[in-house]
Amino acid sequence: YLQTLELELEAIEKGGYDHFMMKEIMEQPKSVADCLRGRVIAKKNHVKLGGVFNHFDDLLSAKRIIIVACGTSWHAGLVAEYIFEELVRVPVEVEYASEFRYRNPIIGKGDVLIAISQSGETADTLAAMSLAESKGAIVLGVCNVVGSSIARNSHEGAYTHAGPEIGVASTKAFTAQLTVLTTMALMLAKEKGSLTEAQLSDLLTEIESIPSKIEKVLKSNDSVREISSLYKDAKNFLYLGRGFNFPVALEGALKLKEISYIHAEGYPAAEMKHGPIALIDEEMPVVVIATRDSSYDKVVSNLQEVKARSGRVIAVVTEGDVLIPGMVDHVIEVPDTHEVLMPMISCIPLQLLSYHIAVMRGCNVDQPRNLAKSVTVE
Amino acid sequence: YLQTLELELEAIEKGGYDHFMMKEIMEQPKSVADCLRGRVIAKKNHVKLGGVFNHFDDLLSAKRIIIVACGTSWHAGLVAEYIFEELVRVPVEVEYASEFRYRNPIIGKGDVLIAISQSGETADTLAAMSLAESKGAIVLGVCNVVGSSIARNSHEGAYTHAGPEIGVASTKAFTAQLTVLTTMALMLAKEKGSLTEAQLSDLLTEIESIPSKIEKVLKSNDSVREISSLYKDAKNFLYLGRGFNFPVALEGALKLKEISYIHAEGYPAAEMKHGPIALIDEEMPVVVIATRDSSYDKVVSNLQEVKARSGRVIAVVTEGDVLIPGMVDHVIEVPDTHEVLMPMISCIPLQLLSYHIAVMRGCNVDQPRNLAKSVTVE
Repeated sequence: YLQTLELELEAIEKGGYDHFMMKEIMEQPKSVADCLRGRVIAKKNHVKLGGVFNHFDDLLSAKRIIIVACGTSWHAGLVAEYIFEELVRVPVEVEYASEFRYRNPIIGKGDVLIAISQSGETADTLAAMSLAESKGAIVLGVCNVVGSSIARNSHEGAYTHAGPEIGVASTKAFTAQLTVLTTMALMLAKEKGSLTEAQLSDLLTEIESIPSKIEKVLKSNDSVREISSLYKDAKNFLYLGRGFNFPVALEGALKLKEISYIHAEGYPAAEMKHGPIALIDEEMPVVVIATRDSSYDKVVSNLQEVKARSGRVIAVVTEGDVLIPGMVDHVIEVPDTHEVLMPMISCIPLQLLSYHIAVMRGCNVDQPRNLAKSVTVE
Repeated sequence: YLQTLELELEAIEKGGYDHFMMKEIMEQPKSVADCLRGRVIAKKNHVKLGGVFNHFDDLLSAKRIIIVACGTSWHAGLVAEYIFEELVRVPVEVEYASEFRYRNPIIGKGDVLIAISQSGETADTLAAMSLAESKGAIVLGVCNVVGSSIARNSHEGAYTHAGPEIGVASTKAFTAQLTVLTTMALMLAKEKGSLTEAQLSDLLTEIESIPSKIEKVLKSNDSVREISSLYKDAKNFLYLGRGFNFPVALEGALKLKEISYIHAEGYPAAEMKHGPIALIDEEMPVVVIATRDSSYDKVVSNLQEVKARSGRVIAVVTEGDVLIPGMVDHVIEVPDTHEVLMPMISCIPLQLLSYHIAVMRGCNVDQPRNLAKSVTVE
């Protein structure tokens, strides 16, 4: 009877959902709130990550910040590059940990390396950290698993407090990584004075509202499922975004690859004209993240180019958008927020899309073929 | 009879080849030699790009070099990042021109921006240059078309001297860009003393031998055609490389996308375990660039992972490699060279592969659907 009991236990752990992945997607309003707790209190103008206390001055005075990571965490790093450069005005370089460690990277005293990893055990990321440390850089870790190797081997760091993530395709760990990294940028911006009081206060208020906005996006689950049923047999997918949403396009494509085995690829929307547009026909669905931000007009024109080539478009738009729904095949609305914070919201429908497509294709969503939850080999 | 005459003229211009693209691939021994002429003379220890004479000191003292480009030129920029950081020890950041120009990038006095474009008319790249210049950076252009907008709007620059490129998919312009950028790095390394005399001399001698080594690779044309016939009906392709060959993997995939409309994607080989490996089965051919360099052992282990999942592997290897041929489905040999220079050679078989596959699929190789030779719209 042991077997039976274990299965039941697993069902209980899934909290009524069919898969851990869906449970974890649905947990995001809570996991982001947990991640913010005590760190951001907008009405007190408070923003602080306890874990980077001793090396806060190093971060403040860093000439350059280098972020290393792999997979989904690398995408969080790309978003962070845009956020740090915009809010803190410090140059940020994001590298694949595997590439960084095998060349002779330019890093040393005065530089800060931030290593991002859900498990805190990613072999290439750990090796990149040692290399950076040996060259005199300060090494900060951003990971989810408390007491993991990355937590232990960094000078300091911040946990993402997303709770255990069981599904191999990372979802709530990603949004929690974005939460920590944005909080870190806001903390630096406050100290540096690189934002006005009003801008800082707006962003702190806005980040506090992210959990309830994610809650709202999750209500589109049924309509995303419906869209998924139309595209479940697609052989290929393109994901396009610009600016802060460009790395979200990469992440959306990775989710679909990982669990549905559909060849999906993300691109900065403007690069489409330099090659990928040749792929577009009625057989190639294109997901475009087209929320209302500083790139909006340009994304709309990219979207028209796709439609002109008979591409089928699923657009993620800001609620109330009246232009795009008339131009594309499907829209998924998300609440408005500051563009710096939009990736935390715009990634959610893409998680749902990949989930439903994979389930409809009969794939093992929580344990996709060939993939391990943490990549502890090089 | 005017029509007839024009066709004949076109045939003559193609120099006996069926397509401009093949003619341009075959011209590379000459175009690289033309690009080096007068700039590198190994036996005199001479390396100089006349076009960056007035701003050479700015380049030498640059705290950071930012490279902007699109498409194939962006891939040349990625290779250049690795080359500059390795040989000159200056931090390099490569950005999509379209992404750079629409955010508020961190660039200013003391920084150098290098803009790369075959046509010299790429709209996003031009706009990125103006933005950088308005912020006080020195702007250098690397382009092929003499007197183009980028040539005219940069402070200085270097031409690639590849001759007119008619095929929409860039081939000889890419290797010429690599030639110019490597020459620039060697010129800086010589002045800075960041290489020993012996290292510099070796590299100068080696770069002079690249045209004859490309000549040798081109002799594999028939065997690449044979391999192409086996994979012409593939729906998807993965391209993997590490280190200096990582951007070559991206470029190889882009070529196939552009002219054969097969969804091909490039990845740094080590990232495969973080997602793309889920895609691999017997339906997904994988091109692995596995030349003998500092990443060799790691690439071999990535290659084994692909084979363990029944992937079919086409490997580009250094001539004389006895290990890999026993492990994979097909090998294409290339002559050995310094790893810094390998991209100029390892990209060639991938150009041939995309060409033959596209021809066998009946695609319009020189004028692929949806694509323009120079992207002069935003």
